[in-house]
Amino acid sequence: MKGVKVPGFQFAGVACGIKKSKKKDLALIFSERPATAAALFTTNRLRAGSVVVGMRHVRRGRIQAVVIASGNANACTGKRGIRDAEAMCRETARRLGIDLSLVLPSATGIVGVPLPIERVKEGIARAAVLLSPDSLQQAAEAILTTDRFVKVSAASCSIQGRRVLVAGMVKGAGMIAPKMATMLAYLMTDSAVGPGCLRAILRRAADATFNAVTVDGDTSTNDTVLFLANGAAGNAPIRSGTKEEKALFAAAHKVMKELALKLVEDGEGTTKVVEIRVEGARSVSDARKVAFSVANSKLVKTAFYGEDPNFGRIMVAIGYAGVAVNPDKIDVSFDGVKVVRNGVGLPANERQAAKVLRRHSFKVRIQLRQGSASTSVWTSDLSHEYVRINSAYRT
Amino acid sequence: MKGVKVPGFQFAGVACGIKKSKKKDLALIFSERPATAAALFTTNRLRAGSVVVGMRHVRRGRIQAVVIASGNANACTGKRGIRDAEAMCRETARRLGIDLSLVLPSATGIVGVPLPIERVKEGIARAAVLLSPDSLQQAAEAILTTDRFVKVSAASCSIQGRRVLVAGMVKGAGMIAPKMATMLAYLMTDSAVGPGCLRAILRRAADATFNAVTVDGDTSTNDTVLFLANGAAGNAPIRSGTKEEKALFAAAHKVMKELALKLVEDGEGTTKVVEIRVEGARSVSDARKVAFSVANSKLVKTAFYGEDPNFGRIMVAIGYAGVAVNPDKIDVSFDGVKVVRNGVGLPANERQAAKVLRRHSFKVRIQLRQGSASTSVWTSDLSHEYVRINSAYRT
Repeated sequence: MKGVKVPGFQFAGVACGIKKSKKKDLALIFSERPATAAALFTTNRLRAGSVVVGMRHVRRGRIQAVVIASGNANACTGKRGIRDAEAMCRETARRLGIDLSLVLPSATGIVGVPLPIERVKEGIARAAVLLSPDSLQQAAEAILTTDRFVKVSAASCSIQGRRVLVAGMVKGAGMIAPKMATMLAYLMTDSAVGPGCLRAILRRAADATFNAVTVDGDTSTNDTVLFLANGAAGNAPIRSGTKEEKALFAAAHKVMKELALKLVEDGEGTTKVVEIRVEGARSVSDARKVAFSVANSKLVKTAFYGEDPNFGRIMVAIGYAGVAVNPDKIDVSFDGVKVVRNGVGLPANERQAAKVLRRHSFKVRIQLRQGSASTSVWTSDLSHEYVRINSAYRT
Repeated sequence: MKGVKVPGFQFAGVACGIKKSKKKDLALIFSERPATAAALFTTNRLRAGSVVVGMRHVRRGRIQAVVIASGNANACTGKRGIRDAEAMCRETARRLGIDLSLVLPSATGIVGVPLPIERVKEGIARAAVLLSPDSLQQAAEAILTTDRFVKVSAASCSIQGRRVLVAGMVKGAGMIAPKMATMLAYLMTDSAVGPGCLRAILRRAADATFNAVTVDGDTSTNDTVLFLANGAAGNAPIRSGTKEEKALFAAAHKVMKELALKLVEDGEGTTKVVEIRVEGARSVSDARKVAFSVANSKLVKTAFYGEDPNFGRIMVAIGYAGVAVNPDKIDVSFDGVKVVRNGVGLPANERQAAKVLRRHSFKVRIQLRQGSASTSVWTSDLSHEYVRINSAYRT
């Protein structure tokens, strides 16, 4: 992934002193021409200053630059938070010679402490001169907080005979961690895409990927997923309902799924990545409720960590999901080893199931036998390391 | 509490071999006359056999004996679970010479493994001959699973010039733990109480106590709260809307609140007991949503464990509670030390707030300033010990 270049996009990542560790903490993404933009933001009622400003700027559907501060979430900082996010945009616009409203700001990190805005501005100035098509990796590094590794992914597809690329970067770890966190994801493509089509692709792919993973069940104040399409490939803009839309969706979905799984893999204290597959639900909404009830249960997650095939906890979490299931019809299996049949535990298979749980990654399949809707979500285990990371005092 | 006696009630607790540890694992409660009974059961769709049978037996509002097995939840055991719960009632009825339908069965412990019903029946036979007014403590011990201590409480009040007693016992720890769990609570009074009045008192007091505590946010398949009123005091049955109802409610509430706080205190891995107080909500339902969102957040709970006054995580959990709050109006304080004013963090007070968090018990007060409804819930922290207990393999 190191050499990923997306035609017409440039990147930079620098250290400007937001993080005490002196690690990179300021990233820029620049599109050589204004890009069609679609974005999804946190559903948390408490919105960071950057989110408030970002929502306003993306409304017209065109973005040319993204400026991301890491180490400070610029949340719970009142009116000053909004002023600081605007100042980030203004400095970026000035250094790049573009319009203020074409800049989208993001921030991730500690909550309740004002941004060191002078340092951030100085960082923007330095990053602006370092912008390069080769620096996606540096930008992806600069957006990290408690993450253990850089998360970048890319896929290509053919549009009107042209090869176009979709690339993305993400940071995650915990939804809002002591020394920071939040999910931020940025997708770029050189394809031209109609604004409605881009929004539809983003919404649908995000539902099946970023909205289907959970580490701690918390929702940050800063979550942002942005998709930029700059048209450098020279194709006619892709419209909804065409085979080109299908091709681009497949590429975007592949990139976002890879990034989402890397998010779980890099979740705070993660030692396991587990797919919770729910089948036979009356609706996708029911399937999601059941899947997330299991995926977020502290008792299920500690059992995964302990490599304990504790189907009882899974049944209990299904039972309180708020869906009218019929327990007597439910089957549960771990990578094909059945542990519950018709709602009754199969202790004879436990030894076999325990072997599955020793794997780094496995699938819990829950068959409700009530309908034909199904879904998958991905979760991590709950480990000592999670408690260590999140109980450590912030200093 | 050791000497608590409730006129007209007898108790026993024995070891019959459900638990490998040879600790007490079978309890009996016997009322010398059939008692008026009110009960609340788990809202989990997956109901243990004992709950299914117990719901049926309590429907007529009269119970004379309770038989409780600990070490095995008799859940996820299909039709056999119901047959085993019926067999527990039959054996108890036979040994005590009462009608089968006057017996309420309970179970708590490991899920998915059939009850060793012959041992349980043998235990019932032995417990029946040991019944004594002095043995509440033994019964309270026999219902425990991963609990660290016996939880009993009592209060008295005056009804028509007579002193009547309300006493209770509870077990908890985690909602459904590896080596077991569930919340089971049994309240007894010698007062006579009309059935409607008893149900109303139980419902209202439970909402403010047992339904306002959380350890891990999971809901067991076996949760049961039972209130028995045997009228041994000789008073005329208490009716709704009278001053006697108020007096009995106050005593029952006091007992249930004490037991509920002991539940949190004895929660798996608990090192802190924290009251989450939400004020100024538009409705009690809104206040509860906000309070439980904060009380169940893994990030808030790990911060409590780390003694970190991380108001950011509290604000974030308020923000995703699903209530239309206005973040700019919110104040948050720890035992009177304000850490958020009008939605903005007060880093200057953090040192003072950190001192509060070193206490074993403290209150987080959240003022929403949207209305006049308020509520309190009580939660524990999330510690290394919690992960250790719940990730240990069950064998």
